[in-house]
Amino acid sequence: MAKNEASIPKGTRDFLPGEMVKRNYIFKTIRTVFERFGYLPIETPAMEQASTLTGKYGEEGDRLLFRILNSGNYLAGVSDDEILERNVNKLKTSLSDKGLRYDLTVPFARFVVQHLNEITFPFKRYQIQPVWRADKPQKGRYREFFQCDVDVIGSNSLLNEVEQIQIIDEIFKNLGIRIMIRINDRRILFGIAEVIGEADKIIPITIAIDKHDKIGPHKVNEEMAVKGISEKAIRELQPILGLTGSVEEKLNELENKILLCSRIGRKGVDEMKRLFGYLKTLNLEVDPIFDLTLARGLDYYTGTIIEANSIEMKIGSLCGGGRYDDLTGIFGLNDVSGVGVSFGADRIYDVMEKKDKFPEDTTSTTTIMFVNFGEKEEIHCLSLLAEIRKSGIKAELFPDKVRLKKQMNYANQKNVEYVGLVGENEMKNGLITLKNMKTGDQELIILEELIEKLS
Amino acid sequence: MAKNEASIPKGTRDFLPGEMVKRNYIFKTIRTVFERFGYLPIETPAMEQASTLTGKYGEEGDRLLFRILNSGNYLAGVSDDEILERNVNKLKTSLSDKGLRYDLTVPFARFVVQHLNEITFPFKRYQIQPVWRADKPQKGRYREFFQCDVDVIGSNSLLNEVEQIQIIDEIFKNLGIRIMIRINDRRILFGIAEVIGEADKIIPITIAIDKHDKIGPHKVNEEMAVKGISEKAIRELQPILGLTGSVEEKLNELENKILLCSRIGRKGVDEMKRLFGYLKTLNLEVDPIFDLTLARGLDYYTGTIIEANSIEMKIGSLCGGGRYDDLTGIFGLNDVSGVGVSFGADRIYDVMEKKDKFPEDTTSTTTIMFVNFGEKEEIHCLSLLAEIRKSGIKAELFPDKVRLKKQMNYANQKNVEYVGLVGENEMKNGLITLKNMKTGDQELIILEELIEKLS
Repeated sequence: MAKNEASIPKGTRDFLPGEMVKRNYIFKTIRTVFERFGYLPIETPAMEQASTLTGKYGEEGDRLLFRILNSGNYLAGVSDDEILERNVNKLKTSLSDKGLRYDLTVPFARFVVQHLNEITFPFKRYQIQPVWRADKPQKGRYREFFQCDVDVIGSNSLLNEVEQIQIIDEIFKNLGIRIMIRINDRRILFGIAEVIGEADKIIPITIAIDKHDKIGPHKVNEEMAVKGISEKAIRELQPILGLTGSVEEKLNELENKILLCSRIGRKGVDEMKRLFGYLKTLNLEVDPIFDLTLARGLDYYTGTIIEANSIEMKIGSLCGGGRYDDLTGIFGLNDVSGVGVSFGADRIYDVMEKKDKFPEDTTSTTTIMFVNFGEKEEIHCLSLLAEIRKSGIKAELFPDKVRLKKQMNYANQKNVEYVGLVGENEMKNGLITLKNMKTGDQELIILEELIEKLS
Repeated sequence: MAKNEASIPKGTRDFLPGEMVKRNYIFKTIRTVFERFGYLPIETPAMEQASTLTGKYGEEGDRLLFRILNSGNYLAGVSDDEILERNVNKLKTSLSDKGLRYDLTVPFARFVVQHLNEITFPFKRYQIQPVWRADKPQKGRYREFFQCDVDVIGSNSLLNEVEQIQIIDEIFKNLGIRIMIRINDRRILFGIAEVIGEADKIIPITIAIDKHDKIGPHKVNEEMAVKGISEKAIRELQPILGLTGSVEEKLNELENKILLCSRIGRKGVDEMKRLFGYLKTLNLEVDPIFDLTLARGLDYYTGTIIEANSIEMKIGSLCGGGRYDDLTGIFGLNDVSGVGVSFGADRIYDVMEKKDKFPEDTTSTTTIMFVNFGEKEEIHCLSLLAEIRKSGIKAELFPDKVRLKKQMNYANQKNVEYVGLVGENEMKNGLITLKNMKTGDQELIILEELIEKLS
């Protein structure tokens, strides 16, 4: 075999046991809430057809897709001329017909259409899987990271939005992360673009507004000017984005003044009013905010948009999503509306780690390790272990008869809670010396007592 | 956006909720046993450096690796001449410096060396992740499939083998799958190759013997002849492989007669004797068999080898592994011995599905769905739902006010256990009509009773 350096591709990570336990705590908390709201799990393959992925995430997205080199003679269908042209983007489609999943949304749309006869609408699914992007790796940004998506598709009801806001509220409450939830409606943004005379520029306007939090209002205006939004329109936009007052006051101002002449805009206001009406009847931990500067970059949103951010740490959004009216249209299934949000497990991990939010017992591993005193004791311990494990207790026997210090060191490093010592005396008397590794206390007890204590 | 057919790459699969629940049942059963024996979880990235993967799985393995096309200008470092040579194998290393994980063993070896200062030996880890192979897809063989590996590294003790056999026994007992466990020792096979005068041909002999179950003794002999094993050696091998009697009788025959002149062979016999000695003291569900025809194809095994097969269904091994003495040597860390076994989740799934081994409640989903009677009832139901979910019960409200039949149909399709009906009357009296979907029984109860019943 070839000799190698032990390293992994940049932007990817190994997870050690200590990290795994914490990550699993996050996934379990999220999964439990998803299921409690009636969502069911699905999984899709890591690889999708390249044609499923390309053209869905904009030019930038296409560039960031990881492509799989075709198996066998991947040059078979490519002429010398084509190769020598060195048009790497064009050539890519000949060399590679598969790519790695870039998010969970497009595979979900593909899934819904492909399994139309196997699912019932409204289809409520969740999906927790890694995605891959060839982004420049940097602090907190990885090339392999985990998304936790929850979507319902095939229902126009606003109750779905209500439910997903409840889910966000519940998950962060259970994780102990303090957040703010911001809500807006894409139709209100459409309406605003309409009334300032730039209806056809809704996408650059949205993209610019989306950066409001990161770069501030001044740079947002600069960006809009660069994209060809008129000076007059930008000027008219300012008081709208700076609207103050309660949710009701803002929505009334939009309805009765600003969006008086935009039918789509008023439809958005109407839905926001109904949505906040529902939310008021719920006993949420966090009161969602109506925020006109919330835009969310992705093209496919058409109604409500939602985002949650940590209020303890500046780290970008921990969760975001919204209503889309034609996600499955790409795959030939039109007029199916859905709404979904995505939780970023890696950022949530970072907040919990930095702000010390993991419960203490998230670090525990094996409950009891028995010291190895030799062959006779081994056989005795093996039968003790069998009984202990039957009660669901995590237990192990150190495999080698080495110095006690080395064995205790292993137990320490592994954060084992108890150590069991069974030497000749204990064997004779049917007892176990149980040492509490935290307090250092030792006691001589029988197996039944030990099991009761550790259960 | 581009329009597409909804399909996935051949050899890959989507998992629908019904399958997910069953797969998660298998993973959870396996994980629980792993943890009960003191093993801790790790995960490694889907992509590894190509250099980590190539040359580790033989020529066939290299061919079956999925390679990732480099990002950006992947032709930058490649000359026209190199391209026009069309040597796809050589060119591959220029176009691609990453590949998808082919198994969990090589990434584990890489992990151990890379994180040497963060782990304590003996290091007991388990890992449950998908792997990818560009195999020809066929019934029961996929290009993306899941392995569940459990390994301990950094200990020579035979107790590790004992423990892993216990783990196999326990997992299949808990899954309800009837298996046989076969055990052999590579050193005995080395010894046999030695005494029949073909010590240098141990690899082709092993590979041939490994096919004993699949193709029968006659074809095994033919294959050995093709690989240059002498007729005399093949003749001498027959009575050895056909050895009968109890484990003790076979091992004695090997020790005192057949392997009298092979030191390594007798070392293997000695360890097998000790191993079966330990196993006798345990109360295993299945008595492991000593099987001289078990060889296991992979090069890196050096001691005990283990395999488990279904005795109810012909489907290849469900689990296999063994002792390796130099897995981390490839990455520059020598003389670290380990032992590990790998469970094939997909084959286990197939056996459980075909033989109807999944417990009945593996199919359950949402516990209660409330029928949607309109806006006033919605708001009333939302607060009921909040209380019900607080008790950990999975509950949902149908999002749209549509015909009752359609809503009940949804509940049926989703296998919901109960349906809650709250109309004007129920609202007025603070009651809920609870319908049991299996029996069809209906009753009028208060919220507290409902929660108690469904908890």
